[in-house]
Amino acid sequence: MSITFMNLFPRSTAPSPVSTPTNTGGWRGLIEQYRSFLPVSEKTPVITLLEGNTPLIPAPYLSAQIGRDVKVFVKYDGLNPTGSFKDRGMTMAISKAKEEGAKAVICASTGNTSAAAAAYARRAGMRAFVIIPDGYVALGKLAQALLYGAEVIAINGNFDDALTIVRRLSENYPVTLVNSVNPYRLEGQKTAAFEIVDVLGNAPDWLCIPVGNAGNISAYWMGFCQYHQIGKCDRLPKMMGFQAAGAAPFISGQPVGHPETIATAIRIGNPANWEKAWAASHASQGQFNAVTDEEILEAYRILGSQEGVFCEPASAASVAGLLKVREQVPDGATVVCVLTGNGLKDPDSAVKHSNNQLKAGIVPDLQTVAGVMGF
Amino acid sequence: MSITFMNLFPRSTAPSPVSTPTNTGGWRGLIEQYRSFLPVSEKTPVITLLEGNTPLIPAPYLSAQIGRDVKVFVKYDGLNPTGSFKDRGMTMAISKAKEEGAKAVICASTGNTSAAAAAYARRAGMRAFVIIPDGYVALGKLAQALLYGAEVIAINGNFDDALTIVRRLSENYPVTLVNSVNPYRLEGQKTAAFEIVDVLGNAPDWLCIPVGNAGNISAYWMGFCQYHQIGKCDRLPKMMGFQAAGAAPFISGQPVGHPETIATAIRIGNPANWEKAWAASHASQGQFNAVTDEEILEAYRILGSQEGVFCEPASAASVAGLLKVREQVPDGATVVCVLTGNGLKDPDSAVKHSNNQLKAGIVPDLQTVAGVMGF
Repeated sequence: MSITFMNLFPRSTAPSPVSTPTNTGGWRGLIEQYRSFLPVSEKTPVITLLEGNTPLIPAPYLSAQIGRDVKVFVKYDGLNPTGSFKDRGMTMAISKAKEEGAKAVICASTGNTSAAAAAYARRAGMRAFVIIPDGYVALGKLAQALLYGAEVIAINGNFDDALTIVRRLSENYPVTLVNSVNPYRLEGQKTAAFEIVDVLGNAPDWLCIPVGNAGNISAYWMGFCQYHQIGKCDRLPKMMGFQAAGAAPFISGQPVGHPETIATAIRIGNPANWEKAWAASHASQGQFNAVTDEEILEAYRILGSQEGVFCEPASAASVAGLLKVREQVPDGATVVCVLTGNGLKDPDSAVKHSNNQLKAGIVPDLQTVAGVMGF
Repeated sequence: MSITFMNLFPRSTAPSPVSTPTNTGGWRGLIEQYRSFLPVSEKTPVITLLEGNTPLIPAPYLSAQIGRDVKVFVKYDGLNPTGSFKDRGMTMAISKAKEEGAKAVICASTGNTSAAAAAYARRAGMRAFVIIPDGYVALGKLAQALLYGAEVIAINGNFDDALTIVRRLSENYPVTLVNSVNPYRLEGQKTAAFEIVDVLGNAPDWLCIPVGNAGNISAYWMGFCQYHQIGKCDRLPKMMGFQAAGAAPFISGQPVGHPETIATAIRIGNPANWEKAWAASHASQGQFNAVTDEEILEAYRILGSQEGVFCEPASAASVAGLLKVREQVPDGATVVCVLTGNGLKDPDSAVKHSNNQLKAGIVPDLQTVAGVMGF
């Protein structure tokens, strides 16, 4: 088929901004929005699902818990097109791969990266390969990548074997690696910091963020610094990174051999962006701390049942961390907690860890049901 | 606890719009955005998760399939905070319930309505009751509502019994009914039409939309008409409604006793908004058509694997319908297909209906894996 997958609608007929104050602005995706800050040119075919522009939701319950006029917001990046912050990096990685003539991409991932890679690659007319360790992941976790048309291959081996084989494949065959080593991904991810400043009118006092591979904290810091440099904000946030206690190399000071946590998205023992993340922490006078699985799950439940926000367990590490060090938050501070993924990615955790459970077998009689309800 | 759940951040300190063209506009939810079009006053406590403002994504593959310079967009309402268009109605219904002093809400729903009701009600500090028929729904479908803190009660009986009991409970106890009979819900839902016009600069030529209870098609039409009346658009779209063939009362002309379709969100035999929907269809010179489950699943796969958009099967009825009547689309027309829910709501369908399947047990040797990939 000779279909042009990008620039189908030439710019002259693209949605034009409406001049009244009630328009949405016709968001065109983060590359168009922040083009001058990104390594793209007029030759770059922009592969976009209109990612970014995710809501910065006020969190009144958390704010009240801390008190002292502290204002807490959550950056709900689970509302990106494939349900996680990975879309920010993937629109860049796939657009650049397309520019360079790639026909296929590959990654080793059991989660959010594989979904994002598949969606953007297929939209760009490329093949999308996902390599996973055999028996490592339930089929339901791959539902999204499969529906996006990814070709998923399970190898006999562990996750390290999968990472090794994708690297070797990308070196020996015409297939572009889009794992976190891809340099364009952090460039895309930094735009979340831009969005926060654009909405608040300045940088927050604190940014609380889950830390796994430590790419996202590095990307946010890069974004805040670039905006600060051109005067879009007149301060920089303290970068507060939180790792799961069972996967906390930044706290122990050395790689963790067998990381263990229910927060699978940050279950990483040897972060790829170790130095960048520490540089961000130091420069911002921030901190790294660990939060236990219990603290993560409690934050996960609070977000759902008090704020109405459903995130992945790993995302809740940012809120668990904030609650843990709440005494250190300055009076009146503005705090943004990053929620990296949509809770719908992991329904099993919701069923397992909700306080509420189904009450079944109730006779459908007015008084009986009212009694069950407590009336 | 004496927590104020709304207006926590007084308006003076609320995110203020930034004046440069690169800002996000600081979207404050659909009630603030479209306040003058909605039945709210200064007394209404706005309960919002910053719903609305969902992307209108160009669909280059579908556009190319139809050809003749037809431009297809999808309105991806699955990117609302709880993953479906129901949030649009629920921000209105819960804000009005709060204004009227409600302490609890109730609905009979196994799907998107219960999730939205729970999230907004809990955010407003209310209890949220969900009544379902016993054994009718898998626990995973309730994961979201449970995590939002809903109290879910399964009665011995069918869905009609559940509807009857919630109505009687709301008449006899201090609990507000937020099922589709709630008058505020369509008011909120109409804002999706406003957003489309705000982005396109005019109404589309066609609006393709899945039809179950027929509330959403009625709401969209109301929205387009209101915008037309004040000159925000100079035309009105043809309203093209699509029902699942096994649940197509608008095609057969009478209620369907036992509706059957894989598109569960539109598996409704006797639509509540029968007359409103027909009025919209007539006035817009639109049509109702039926699409088979096979056609729905094919559209679902196309959306995922060609456009990179993952929706619920029911949502894909709008695209299946467009493809079915594609010959009727005028040359050069702009067509918007409404995608009502996020595909992550239903991972089982994705696993079951993807063309691609997992290739397992592959030896992690460079040549072997490359061979499996077709190199």
